Amino acid sequence: MLTTDFLAQLQSLLPPERLYSDIVDCYAYAYDNSQKIYPPDVVVFPLTPEEIQAIVVLCNSHKVPLTPRGRGTGTVGGSLPEQGGVALSLERMLRIVLVDPANRVIVAEPGVLNQAVQDAAKPHGFFWPPDPSSAAYSSIGGNLATSAGGPHAVKYGTTRDHVLGVKAVTGKGDALKTGCYTTKGVVGYDLTRLLIGSEGTLAIITEATLKLTPLPQAYGGLIAHFKDVVSCAKAIVSIMSLSQVPSALEFLDAGSLDLIRGRSPDMLPADTDAILMIETDGSPREITDSSAAILSVCRNEGLLQAEQVSNADNLWKMRKALSPLLRDIAPKKINEDVVVPVATLPEFLYELTQLSSKYNIANVNFGHAGNGNIHVNLLVNPENFDEMTRAEKCLNEVFDLVIRLNGTLSGEHGIGREKRAYIEKEIDATTLMLMKDIKQVFDPNNILNPGKIFL
Amino acid sequence: MLTTDFLAQLQSLLPPERLYSDIVDCYAYAYDNSQKIYPPDVVVFPLTPEEIQAIVVLCNSHKVPLTPRGRGTGTVGGSLPEQGGVALSLERMLRIVLVDPANRVIVAEPGVLNQAVQDAAKPHGFFWPPDPSSAAYSSIGGNLATSAGGPHAVKYGTTRDHVLGVKAVTGKGDALKTGCYTTKGVVGYDLTRLLIGSEGTLAIITEATLKLTPLPQAYGGLIAHFKDVVSCAKAIVSIMSLSQVPSALEFLDAGSLDLIRGRSPDMLPADTDAILMIETDGSPREITDSSAAILSVCRNEGLLQAEQVSNADNLWKMRKALSPLLRDIAPKKINEDVVVPVATLPEFLYELTQLSSKYNIANVNFGHAGNGNIHVNLLVNPENFDEMTRAEKCLNEVFDLVIRLNGTLSGEHGIGREKRAYIEKEIDATTLMLMKDIKQVFDPNNILNPGKIFL
Repeated sequence: MLTTDFLAQLQSLLPPERLYSDIVDCYAYAYDNSQKIYPPDVVVFPLTPEEIQAIVVLCNSHKVPLTPRGRGTGTVGGSLPEQGGVALSLERMLRIVLVDPANRVIVAEPGVLNQAVQDAAKPHGFFWPPDPSSAAYSSIGGNLATSAGGPHAVKYGTTRDHVLGVKAVTGKGDALKTGCYTTKGVVGYDLTRLLIGSEGTLAIITEATLKLTPLPQAYGGLIAHFKDVVSCAKAIVSIMSLSQVPSALEFLDAGSLDLIRGRSPDMLPADTDAILMIETDGSPREITDSSAAILSVCRNEGLLQAEQVSNADNLWKMRKALSPLLRDIAPKKINEDVVVPVATLPEFLYELTQLSSKYNIANVNFGHAGNGNIHVNLLVNPENFDEMTRAEKCLNEVFDLVIRLNGTLSGEHGIGREKRAYIEKEIDATTLMLMKDIKQVFDPNNILNPGKIFL
Repeated sequence: MLTTDFLAQLQSLLPPERLYSDIVDCYAYAYDNSQKIYPPDVVVFPLTPEEIQAIVVLCNSHKVPLTPRGRGTGTVGGSLPEQGGVALSLERMLRIVLVDPANRVIVAEPGVLNQAVQDAAKPHGFFWPPDPSSAAYSSIGGNLATSAGGPHAVKYGTTRDHVLGVKAVTGKGDALKTGCYTTKGVVGYDLTRLLIGSEGTLAIITEATLKLTPLPQAYGGLIAHFKDVVSCAKAIVSIMSLSQVPSALEFLDAGSLDLIRGRSPDMLPADTDAILMIETDGSPREITDSSAAILSVCRNEGLLQAEQVSNADNLWKMRKALSPLLRDIAPKKINEDVVVPVATLPEFLYELTQLSSKYNIANVNFGHAGNGNIHVNLLVNPENFDEMTRAEKCLNEVFDLVIRLNGTLSGEHGIGREKRAYIEKEIDATTLMLMKDIKQVFDPNNILNPGKIFL
């Protein structure tokens, strides 16, 4: 519980319309897409780095937990005020500070939506490559906090590849300026990328300098149907050994396709057991060339059919239908986003089906196959204790499999609170201790998003 | 001076042929391309991470300075054992641990030459994009320590964009494993990029997992001659606002061209005052398309002529002739590698000529114009006290100009010892203090490359 003294001081920093302390108001800032609920005691809406600094200094001196928050679209509980205290919402810091097409840069406040950045860049012939499926309503502050990816990461990389520098406030209330305004720069330590993906545990990002990329001239689409998951996985490996890199390479397994069939029976042939949705970009001629190269290596013993898709929106129709369907069927599904080396995908996807059978857990897998980044969904009912026990064992074995194949537990969602119990599977004790020591430097009183990533 | 006790313990860790203590032997490890000389007391040549760990633990317990060293090609004194002690040469750790084309990965020890990585990748259709001009004889350990760039950074980025993870030993002797083996991964803090560019002050990299890129099908070349530097700079800005990104965009100013004329009088027309060397890569058709687009925006009022160069080697002939010529004419030149936002290049290059006149310092500028990364060379004679005094004032104003234009003091060379006096021009006191605190976490006794980047 917050002291009245602390509350009074906090109230002195902001006008009343930018501080919520009513329990009902606060409840709206208690959730994220992990579907857990942890209400904060107070929600604040700063508008400037100076206000953020004042709030942090106050929280630090009172050792009050402070959880920064974008738009709450994260899936691992990274923005949940798990220990109560102050939720610091950045949703009102909505200013695009600068659009500088000559230098291929946009400078933006953290509350700016990913889509707003795209809208500002497009008239100048540019885009900002990170494209999480939440792009329309997630903020760039959150994108940076998680180093968000998305389907185009296979060609363009993730958030950490597209940020030149940030301004940020540490847990001590110190204002930092990291990185630079140019595409090269090696002065001092790379604090920019240390903050990107740190899930709000080191500092609150108050401004970001985003590096823009020229929009491709055109897009091409291909859909390839396979009779089984292993031949589909082999095609992924073959595509990723081509010199032509697709701009997206998305995979849907049998479970995913069955869900789609349940909703739209005529959308898919009965014998299709796995699908690849492949996007290429570039000049029309490049698209023709790379589509031909990709198509030719898809032609293995398991290919049923492959069709060109003229409209890129049609390409994504099935993929976009999937998440709501999964929510319908299993509102409390366990949703992972593990990554394995691409060449191990045939083994990984085969072993997944084995684990699903062994533990009798319905399992739907899809995702960014070009990066080896698979969204493994365990369709469980949290009220079924027996099923949850089996699911937990299954998940544990999935993670062990991922580590054995030299993969990583998360490609884009992060650790947050949902996966911190597993982090020691991937990061050894010495390296983890060093990360905790770095946390201590930025946030000696452990007020910034305490308990996230590691306890 | 090292104690006999320390020396005896060090000798117990390595066979005699891998420890030099003779003053003449040590002298060969006293230099780098900054041309300063700081002999170590001892040079050690470990072969394994375990040996490195034992050496660090020993140095740490005796508080003996330990300077890791690649091949000594750095230009800012980053590998000089300025405070004596132990030079730890990684030149015998030459093993390519793994070539894994299916996952587009090479794992290598730090002593492996950049060129050896290229040679291992090429048969599989890949390359590793960082290409400092020292690529033939610099090691990947050194490339990582400085986040090396090179001419292809304009399209492909620098070292930090092409490393998936490292193994490293901190100044406490702790063995770290950072990053992952996949192209996506967001588990824990990004220690990989914190170590890349840290110039051996945080940890000694003992192994690196390098991300490979498909070799382009072909290369195209263009040389554009301009009658003055400002129209040349305008062409750079126009080229960099195209959606077609050149694979290299190198600039030579009048001073550079005069040097070349001095050696090869017939190589260049008399009225050419600035040159752009432009490389494009991709399919033959892409090259045709992008060459046409680039050529069309080069056609401003200052363009004298533009010629296609069929053989890419010819394109680089002039550029490669330049560094030895500079050494001939001014063996102790001051060599900077500042970066300014591309759109400010016209102003920057004009102001440089003004500063050169103001201080009467001969000045030759060339470099990676597509990144705004210009090698500013002040041709001075260190024995001329008056000239050196003027050069120092001139350099100070150059740096102030760079910062005023929102640039950075170094694009690829780093800070080392040569530029540490200037770092506070770019990094504010708070951010610098945080970097020092991070240094303290990795290296509490300040034994790893002490005094580099900051004192």
